[in-house]
Amino acid sequence: MDPRIREHAEVLVDWSAQVSAGDNVIVQLDEGSIPLGIAVAECLGEREANMVVTFNSDELSRAYLHSFPSLDFTDDPEHALALFEEADVFLRLRGGSNTSGMADVPMDKRQAISRARQKVREATYDTDWVSTIHPTPSLAQQASMATEEYRAFAYRAMIRDWESLAGEMDRLKTRIDKGDEVRIITDNTDISMRIEGRTAVNSAASVAYDSHNLPSGEVFTAPYATEGEVVFDVPMTLYGSPVRDVHLTFEGGEVVDVDAAEGLATIEGILETDDGARRLGELGIGMNRDIDRYTNNILFDEKMGDTFHLALGRAYDACLPEGEIGNESAVHVDMIADMSEDATLSIDDEVVYREGSFVWETGFSAN
Amino acid sequence: MDPRIREHAEVLVDWSAQVSAGDNVIVQLDEGSIPLGIAVAECLGEREANMVVTFNSDELSRAYLHSFPSLDFTDDPEHALALFEEADVFLRLRGGSNTSGMADVPMDKRQAISRARQKVREATYDTDWVSTIHPTPSLAQQASMATEEYRAFAYRAMIRDWESLAGEMDRLKTRIDKGDEVRIITDNTDISMRIEGRTAVNSAASVAYDSHNLPSGEVFTAPYATEGEVVFDVPMTLYGSPVRDVHLTFEGGEVVDVDAAEGLATIEGILETDDGARRLGELGIGMNRDIDRYTNNILFDEKMGDTFHLALGRAYDACLPEGEIGNESAVHVDMIADMSEDATLSIDDEVVYREGSFVWETGFSAN
Repeated sequence: MDPRIREHAEVLVDWSAQVSAGDNVIVQLDEGSIPLGIAVAECLGEREANMVVTFNSDELSRAYLHSFPSLDFTDDPEHALALFEEADVFLRLRGGSNTSGMADVPMDKRQAISRARQKVREATYDTDWVSTIHPTPSLAQQASMATEEYRAFAYRAMIRDWESLAGEMDRLKTRIDKGDEVRIITDNTDISMRIEGRTAVNSAASVAYDSHNLPSGEVFTAPYATEGEVVFDVPMTLYGSPVRDVHLTFEGGEVVDVDAAEGLATIEGILETDDGARRLGELGIGMNRDIDRYTNNILFDEKMGDTFHLALGRAYDACLPEGEIGNESAVHVDMIADMSEDATLSIDDEVVYREGSFVWETGFSAN
Repeated sequence: MDPRIREHAEVLVDWSAQVSAGDNVIVQLDEGSIPLGIAVAECLGEREANMVVTFNSDELSRAYLHSFPSLDFTDDPEHALALFEEADVFLRLRGGSNTSGMADVPMDKRQAISRARQKVREATYDTDWVSTIHPTPSLAQQASMATEEYRAFAYRAMIRDWESLAGEMDRLKTRIDKGDEVRIITDNTDISMRIEGRTAVNSAASVAYDSHNLPSGEVFTAPYATEGEVVFDVPMTLYGSPVRDVHLTFEGGEVVDVDAAEGLATIEGILETDDGARRLGELGIGMNRDIDRYTNNILFDEKMGDTFHLALGRAYDACLPEGEIGNESAVHVDMIADMSEDATLSIDDEVVYREGSFVWETGFSAN
């Protein structure tokens, strides 16, 4: 076995999910992530955890959804719900054989089954869940990279000194928690948003930090009262469609104008989902500098060093004061922009980041 | 997709498991049975059943068991138990990549996890469960057959007119149910056993017949008070060891002498498991004539036409009067013998089968 697979499994089980003896763990495999599943099983055995292995496959889901004759899916089947309700930890090991494997399943059917699995989904969120990927040829292809090149990239981003990055990210979290307003200026962006009363999450790839992705490496919060213009210059694929250079104009916290070099209809469709889809749910600052390139996979792209992202739609509870309800929406759509050149991020008029350096880093220049 | 995969899935879902709309179904895949899983998912979608897919892999189980540092497995983890307790149907689609995939896992560890999963196992038996195989290269290799040759064989045995075979088997069941004693004589066997008060199962590959294997095609009951000698001349692999020409001598229902051309130590080990392991739990008559050769897989071999098998150990409740406890044992080990030549099977001194023909078939001769 490639020793990196075993190292990845150890980071996942020990740092990310913090599995201990007797934990009831669900390991969910895709058809391409079985090698990682074997390494995870080995780690779970060592930790004396209890394991149920479930299987996810786009081909299988597609066959089921295509043949299902209506949109009347049973709400939250008892056996699926019971499995997740009794679990302590849910490890989602993504890595299929075709990232477009559901391409011809009608959107209304995908939405219908998603609605009919709401309690099952909530039950997974009540576990110490972590989502990661096994670097498959399919994911490499999506990133336009050779498979071995992609493996080296992915393992560099995932197998790293997380404690040290957590310390680094805590510096930014502290400043955001104290601040009232964030402003980001680049050559095509000038946007301000309120963060007063909101808390930042130091997303250090561990449930101990309220962080459920491996890799992670971002600091995020839930902004409001957004004003100004922003261009997202990192390309992405949303709902299967390529989207480039989305340009949003905000007034009074809401999107009042939208444009895009590609995928305008997709963005317009998202904005029309509900009222909350026109407001921001998240501001995130990517701080994982081992993610040094775009790979068309949001799990990695949004944590890319020297980028920021904004999400239209739902806000995360971890960023809100106890009991407060943030922006509500059926969607949460992240879009990413580069900050490595001609860019500043200020909190309450103090520049805390300028084109590649934070204020506490050598190389930072205040103006 | 090979159309036989779809036909196999239909037989499994409709005839064997009798799935209906709203049923909570668990589909358990091995790493080699995913193509069948896709076809089953398609059928379950058409029937509007609810599906959870679990994954079984010897490589994964081996990794977990090897690394587990003791024999103190948690008894029946809540999430595994809850999943099966809330399920209506359990479809076990076997077909790995190496039938020896657990070969180096110590027996005491396999036994320990098996003991620690007793309630989970019982919960699976409380569902409408069916075990079948997807014809993989590994299973073909175990049968010493070319893969395509094996596929043709396996599908012939599984995709067939089960209703017609059920009618045929019912003739034998009726005679066994009425009978008090069975005697089988071949050139090296002369064995008698009591069946008075016991019921035969017409195992027609459907839960509607208390039959949980696809393929099936056997009539079996729970005999007692066995006397005489028997030689099992169909070769088999028991606990990973080849076993040939086991020769058992019974007195007063118990094995009093044992010999074998190969694997004697394995058989002796089985006989020493507990008191019940020295008595019979099953007499079965193979009646699936599409299984016309030995393939070193008990799921097929014991249903081979013109054979009988006896199992040392546990008897099945379905063969016993309500409330009666049959032979009890931790083991149930089937061994098979040919009846196609020089053989008779009699019930209460009436010959009902002679070398290839039952009493109701043309070609049968009474002496």
